[in-house]
Parts: sequence; structure tokens; C-alpha cells
Amino acid sequence: MAAQTVSDFAIAVDLGGTQLRAALVDRGGVVSARQNVATAAQAGADTVVKQISDLVKTVISEATGKKILGVGVSSPGPLDTAEGIALSLPTIAGFENFPLGAALRKSVALPLWLENDGIAAAIGEWRLGAGRGFANIVYVTVSTGIGGGVIVDNHVMRGRRGMAGHVGHMIIVPDGDVCGCGTRGCFEAYGAGPAFTKRAVSRGLTADSKAVFEAAREGHAIAMELVREEAEILGRGFASLAHLYSPDLIVMGGGLANAFDDLIPDMRATFIENAMPAFKDIKIVRAGLGGNSGLIGAAALVFDGTQGSA
Amino acid sequence: MAAQTVSDFAIAVDLGGTQLRAALVDRGGVVSARQNVATAAQAGADTVVKQISDLVKTVISEATGKKILGVGVSSPGPLDTAEGIALSLPTIAGFENFPLGAALRKSVALPLWLENDGIAAAIGEWRLGAGRGFANIVYVTVSTGIGGGVIVDNHVMRGRRGMAGHVGHMIIVPDGDVCGCGTRGCFEAYGAGPAFTKRAVSRGLTADSKAVFEAAREGHAIAMELVREEAEILGRGFASLAHLYSPDLIVMGGGLANAFDDLIPDMRATFIENAMPAFKDIKIVRAGLGGNSGLIGAAALVFDGTQGSA
Repeated sequence: MAAQTVSDFAIAVDLGGTQLRAALVDRGGVVSARQNVATAAQAGADTVVKQISDLVKTVISEATGKKILGVGVSSPGPLDTAEGIALSLPTIAGFENFPLGAALRKSVALPLWLENDGIAAAIGEWRLGAGRGFANIVYVTVSTGIGGGVIVDNHVMRGRRGMAGHVGHMIIVPDGDVCGCGTRGCFEAYGAGPAFTKRAVSRGLTADSKAVFEAAREGHAIAMELVREEAEILGRGFASLAHLYSPDLIVMGGGLANAFDDLIPDMRATFIENAMPAFKDIKIVRAGLGGNSGLIGAAALVFDGTQGSA
Repeated sequence: MAAQTVSDFAIAVDLGGTQLRAALVDRGGVVSARQNVATAAQAGADTVVKQISDLVKTVISEATGKKILGVGVSSPGPLDTAEGIALSLPTIAGFENFPLGAALRKSVALPLWLENDGIAAAIGEWRLGAGRGFANIVYVTVSTGIGGGVIVDNHVMRGRRGMAGHVGHMIIVPDGDVCGCGTRGCFEAYGAGPAFTKRAVSRGLTADSKAVFEAAREGHAIAMELVREEAEILGRGFASLAHLYSPDLIVMGGGLANAFDDLIPDMRATFIENAMPAFKDIKIVRAGLGGNSGLIGAAALVFDGTQGSA
């Protein structure tokens, strides 16, 4: 590769319900000039848009002499990336049917791409993380919610309004527990972090999931049972996703991936038990880019220039 | 379109557990020279391969003077269409890891394409049926099993070994009823025809699903309850599929689509109840090609020449 292309940079923005992050990312996935602020999640869309443009300006100011091709933004969804409209961001107030793409383009004087966070992280893992070199991956982030993104036949699956891959809202129990999305029985309502800690508390343990995993490692019976249950919920969900998308591998990210080693034995056993024979050998792996999957995926949108966000 | 292209034909073969069908199909989806035989489902792979090649020869003999571009075969799966290998055909004996593509190419002297039946039917509906003109469709056949295929971003989703879109094996009840695939709790185990008739029989009604729908239309309370339950199972499953694939529309085919008008009111109500706000307006429609979705999709493989089956 010519030195010229290596010196290209993208500004990547990762908008989350708690943290807003921005950084400079090169084609090799090296992240620099990293900036963080607490998201003004209750202050309304205009304030958040200003936070983003201010953060982008700060990153630009640290990139003197560098060639910046554009800005890639990873945002929670559902986000209509075909039109650039935030339909609603459950964790950030004031974004109902908000034209996020247009608002950002007004305040950022660079080409800009917008992507649902699950899809952005999937792209990051596919390009430079655990999914590198595979044609088919399902990325699942298990955190305060369950999100994801799907690459199939070397193609980023976007679908109607760019909203494909909402894997956390596959219904796994008819009329089951209420989910953050407002409906019932979703994978997220059982498998995400809050469901895990809720089960822990209901059985007399702490709400600190790290401490529960630690206790399980030390042989605490209830903690071990909780970890096994969580692994089973995830393993069964992943078996469904295998049948639905036929990936080469399933990549698990998000906060609970920190406990990947604790979860994988029962997760894999349950996956194999629930997968049809032709799907049993699909691998489940931990995300390779840690917390940077989204930033690196957002940067990839810029380098590819392929996303159709208006 | 030039007259020359209109006079091109494909031979389409639809291999099913009960019937083996073949026909001549033109680019407009007109089906002629139709042939049927009962599938020798217990006789082994060699016999079935001979049935297929004999049927193809019969169709060729009726196509004198016509330009035939090739043969497209729709087969039950899981079928590794990347390698042309039938991994196992639950309804037809003797196909475990059988090189179906190679065997057919030995006996049929025309270019040949092979596709999983759910994907073939999805292609048919996308090209010339209810999904015509849409970029994103999920096709679901509800019959003795539940199968399907997915078009996303104008791309036929194939995935690892060409096995994507096994929508009937999304797990909807943890450790639920045993499914034909050997695992538990699948959408198919609750939503397919046999589950419906089993519920009917367990409540004192007939195993004839047509008669149950008829009785419901006449106001029979138990029959009405059975129809409502079936509609709810399907509507909830379709809501999951909407979140997973973000289609423009969901196309329902298969035997139970004959009762589409009976099912749609409660199916739609349950769909809307279970779909996230941004997905509630996705339409559910009946397949437009009836029993011909698979044949027309198999023919489309030939006209496109795009499938990678070896």
C-alpha cells in the first residue's frame, strides 16, 4: 500500500447513552487523539449535536497537517440510515424522528456517514477484528442491551431504512418479560446485563455483575448457577442467529464479553445442543477490538464511502 | 425486450418430500410442459437423481426448437449450495452428505444450478411475485415445516454454505416442543401445519386443517380459538423476523397461506403488538405465485447465472 493512503485519517464518533467519544482512526485501525465527554442524554437533540460537533473540532485541532477524509458516526438506533433520521434513541432524550444526519452536516464541514451502532461495530470487527477475512459474521453486543450487526456474503446487511440486525429483539419467550423496547419476551430482556443482575439480586447476590462472575470462579453455588443460566440464554439465542443468518462465526462484544471465558463453556454446549447438525460447528468468539469496534467501524464507513445515509 | 430473450427458457425442478415437479419456465415466469411424479422418498439418492434426470429429459422432449439455457433445482435443505452437497434432507432418505450437484451434472447435460427451497421460492416471489420491486423481503413458507429465504438490499442472502434464512428454526420457546430438526422450541414446532392440527385434535376437532378453518368461519368457538392462536404464533414470529432482517414486506407462502384471509387479522394485530415502533408498518402479504414460487425461483437462478453452486 502506498504511503499516501496510510496517512489518510477518518474521524470516528461513537455516540452512546452514557459516553460520547471521538477519535482519529487510520486505515489500519490505529486510534489516536481520543476524546470523551459524558453524553448530555437529557438535554435534547440540539445540545447533543453541539457536543458532537465540538468534539469533532477538538479532534481536528489535534490533527494538524493530517488528511482527514470525513466523519463516521455510530449512533444507537433505531436509526433510519437511508434518510439519516433518528427514529428514537431509547437512551438519549429528544431524538424522536430527528434529522440527525442533516443536523450534523450543518455543523461539521466534512463528508459525514451515519450508522446504527450495532452495524458499525460489526463492520469494525469484520474489517479489523475477530471477523477479519470471513464473508459471514454475526456481531452481537451484550451490554445494557443486546444489539448487533450482520455481514453476509461479504455484504453489510442493512435492509429497510438501514435497520436490519436488531438481534436483541428476537422474541425468545412468548408474552415474556417486558423489554426496554416496549414489547415482551425479547432476547435482550433475558440476556442483557440488567436481566443478569436482576436475577442475581433476586437470589440474594449483589447487583455488581463483575462480583458475581468472580464469586462463580471461586465456586459460589448460586453465582455458578447464574453464570450457567446466562450462558444458556446466550447460547440458545446464538443458535437461533446461526439458523437465521448462517454466519462463519458469531462475534460477541459488549460489557458481558469481559466474562467471555466464564461464559463460553456452557454457552458453547447450549449452542451445540440447540443448533441443527449443519450449524453446530459455527464458532463463537470474543470481539477482537474491545471497546473500539464501533469507532473503527465508523471510520471504515468513511474509508469505504459506501453508506447511503443522506 | 428483444424477442430473442423472451424465447429463452429454463427447466425448473422442484424437489419435495412428496412430489417431484419439473417444468419449462420463460423469463416472464410462464410455466409450461409441467411434469409431476411422486418422489421416491425412501428409495435412496441414486433413484431420486434418476427420477430428476428422467423428468428433465421429458421436459426437454416437449421443448423441441426451444432454447434452453439450463436447469435450476430447488431442493429441501440444509443444502450446502456452495459445494452442491445435500447435508441431510429430513423428508427424503439417503441424502446425508450426498454430492447432489455433482450427481445431477453427470446425468443432465445442461448447466445446472442448485438452491435451498426456501431461498428459491424467495427469489421467485421477489422477481415475479408479491415481492416484485422491493429491495428487502422475507419469504416464509408455512406448510408441513416452516422455511424461508431473505432478500436484503437487493441481494439474495446465502451465508455460510448457502444455508441462511432457516427461519423455521428460530427458537421461540426455551426447551420447548421437540422440532422435526431434532432440537426444541423452534418456530416450526409451534407454527407449522402439523402443530396446528395437533392442537386441533387435542381439543377434540379434526386433523383436517381446512375443516378447522371452515368451522372457524362458521363461528365454532374452539376452531376460532385455534385459528387465533395460530395467527398469534405466526404474527409474533414475523415480528422477530422484522427486527432481524428489516424487510419491506413479509411474504407468506405454503399450505397455510391458503387460509391467509382467516389468519391475517390476528396475525397483523399480534405483529403490531410485538414489533418495535419503527417496524410496525411492515406489511405481511400472501405469496403471489402460489405453488409456483419455487419453480419460478429455480428458473431465475438459470436466467441470472449467479448462484455459486459447484
